[in-house]
Amino acid sequence: MLRAMRVNAYAALDHGQPLVQWNYETQELGPDQVLLRVLACGLCHSDLHMIQNDWKSSTYPLVPGHEVVGEIVEKGGALAHLHVGQRVGVGWQRSACLHCDDCLRGNENLCDESTGLITHGHGGFADHVVADGRFCVPLGDDLPTEFAGPLMCGGITVYSGLRHAGMTSGQRIGIIGVGGLGHLAVQFASKLGNTVTVFTTTDEKAQQATHLGAHEVIIVRRGTLAENPRKHFDLILSTVPTPIPCELYLRLLESDGTLCFVGVHNEHLDIPLFPLLARRRRVMASPIGGRAMMRQMLDIATRLGIRPTIEKFPLAEVNSAIARLRRNSVRYRAVLMP
Amino acid sequence: MLRAMRVNAYAALDHGQPLVQWNYETQELGPDQVLLRVLACGLCHSDLHMIQNDWKSSTYPLVPGHEVVGEIVEKGGALAHLHVGQRVGVGWQRSACLHCDDCLRGNENLCDESTGLITHGHGGFADHVVADGRFCVPLGDDLPTEFAGPLMCGGITVYSGLRHAGMTSGQRIGIIGVGGLGHLAVQFASKLGNTVTVFTTTDEKAQQATHLGAHEVIIVRRGTLAENPRKHFDLILSTVPTPIPCELYLRLLESDGTLCFVGVHNEHLDIPLFPLLARRRRVMASPIGGRAMMRQMLDIATRLGIRPTIEKFPLAEVNSAIARLRRNSVRYRAVLMP
Repeated sequence: MLRAMRVNAYAALDHGQPLVQWNYETQELGPDQVLLRVLACGLCHSDLHMIQNDWKSSTYPLVPGHEVVGEIVEKGGALAHLHVGQRVGVGWQRSACLHCDDCLRGNENLCDESTGLITHGHGGFADHVVADGRFCVPLGDDLPTEFAGPLMCGGITVYSGLRHAGMTSGQRIGIIGVGGLGHLAVQFASKLGNTVTVFTTTDEKAQQATHLGAHEVIIVRRGTLAENPRKHFDLILSTVPTPIPCELYLRLLESDGTLCFVGVHNEHLDIPLFPLLARRRRVMASPIGGRAMMRQMLDIATRLGIRPTIEKFPLAEVNSAIARLRRNSVRYRAVLMP
Repeated sequence: MLRAMRVNAYAALDHGQPLVQWNYETQELGPDQVLLRVLACGLCHSDLHMIQNDWKSSTYPLVPGHEVVGEIVEKGGALAHLHVGQRVGVGWQRSACLHCDDCLRGNENLCDESTGLITHGHGGFADHVVADGRFCVPLGDDLPTEFAGPLMCGGITVYSGLRHAGMTSGQRIGIIGVGGLGHLAVQFASKLGNTVTVFTTTDEKAQQATHLGAHEVIIVRRGTLAENPRKHFDLILSTVPTPIPCELYLRLLESDGTLCFVGVHNEHLDIPLFPLLARRRRVMASPIGGRAMMRQMLDIATRLGIRPTIEKFPLAEVNSAIARLRRNSVRYRAVLMP
């Protein structure tokens, strides 16, 4: 390419500020870059953390939005596998080195030089976004635009977590929490032939969990289960951003079972050694996922009809969507439509 | 069989007592049982715990000894795969249900109904011992009697731990501690083609670790490393019976790396979530091993010349061996010879 162009975006001008309309000029596209016209963009809790500079990595003006579905408007010369007019998705990850051991193993998400779409550039709350074409995933025609965005971050986070924690099929899987992550995890686990138990705090979410495919729902109040699950688990995935009673859940695992965290908080885990030892149990955590895993996840979601439950907002109402997410009242993922 | 017989043993008559000569009559052998003439028996820290009733599971008189090498003197009628005169090994595990999922998967060591040789009967500090023939492993001629005993508990504990924590070959493996467990772990890991770093507290053990096959040794004093390892690890095995600084070792793991505990203590693990998440790291613990794993371990140890470093004691001097073990001065495994 190509001439620079003006992007109309919504940005936080300082930490914690409401988003305001803001423009920026793109640079000339690099050989691996694409310019996307944004078709839809999910709103994720990580956008709130970035707006609030919770991770001390934000720079302002900050354009959030990292669950992007876009159409390729222009592309750099090195991108033979993409074409103008193609519909693609971009998630949390902007780029990676692509030559370290992690990248060569398909774990670009674990690369030391991994960059974030909104930590190292401007995101998708805009009419256009510049992305690394090598991290854009082509979307099949059967996956509607408004549902694809939340799969690019929330979907890959739970799917990669479940897979790396050992999910196959025919297992018993526990899912802690029914929110932006948990409501997708329930679907992946149950539609892939597993028996799913959901741990949640409200009767409303219990009903929704059943509707999403859970076979058993257990209410948790103040760290205590209202009843014991019928059987122990091969895998328990924690999708909540708050501490959980680790020992309680560890003891619900079968032999060789794994307690995997994809919901993150700042507290340390308190892990008693004996329940780990007695059944050779494991504790792990998993961040987003690599590109091959992303393709697999999108393929499975498309073929099995796994879709986020979404609420659509016009991009101009982004601050309303953020307010709803802060009040924890979105069911379950907000998607901004330009 | 067969008539009952009198066994001459050494037993603790109450908790923490020195062992004394003590006799008992065997029962008639069940169809799956064998009577073994003891050829050698290793002394393990778990014997001390049992003598002291540290796990509140001891009954007295207690005959310790669960690293038994014996010759089959008589066998029950259901044991077609064993023959009188055969040399076999028996480890910590006396028996299991053999029909639960764990047993059917070869994880008899994780069976809910698993019993211990010395928690559910009399052990190998004796001229004879009665065992479950299904848990006796035939020993090849190339494995000398005095070396086989410590492999039956210490050997399987570290080998199964390394395998379940993902050991293959060509990896970088850290071993915390050079003792009864650690000195075997170093040999398994290095002889199977891995690069091994040992973490230990004394210069004497550092030298011995190098002699055993370690490629790098790092001295640890008061939870601080004297230097940083050259490269991060795929797997770190903690073989020490005391707490370790978990975060320090977690941060030395590569992506998808595992911190595995085979040395056990009563403290909880303090695990920060972020280092787990950033590199998809895992924490686990592993107890002894199943029967198929035991055979594999013995085969590998025999073919690759992996042998415990032992000090032999006449069985009559069992109290001297116990005193040495309590002072942590055995290098590295005491073996009692009748």
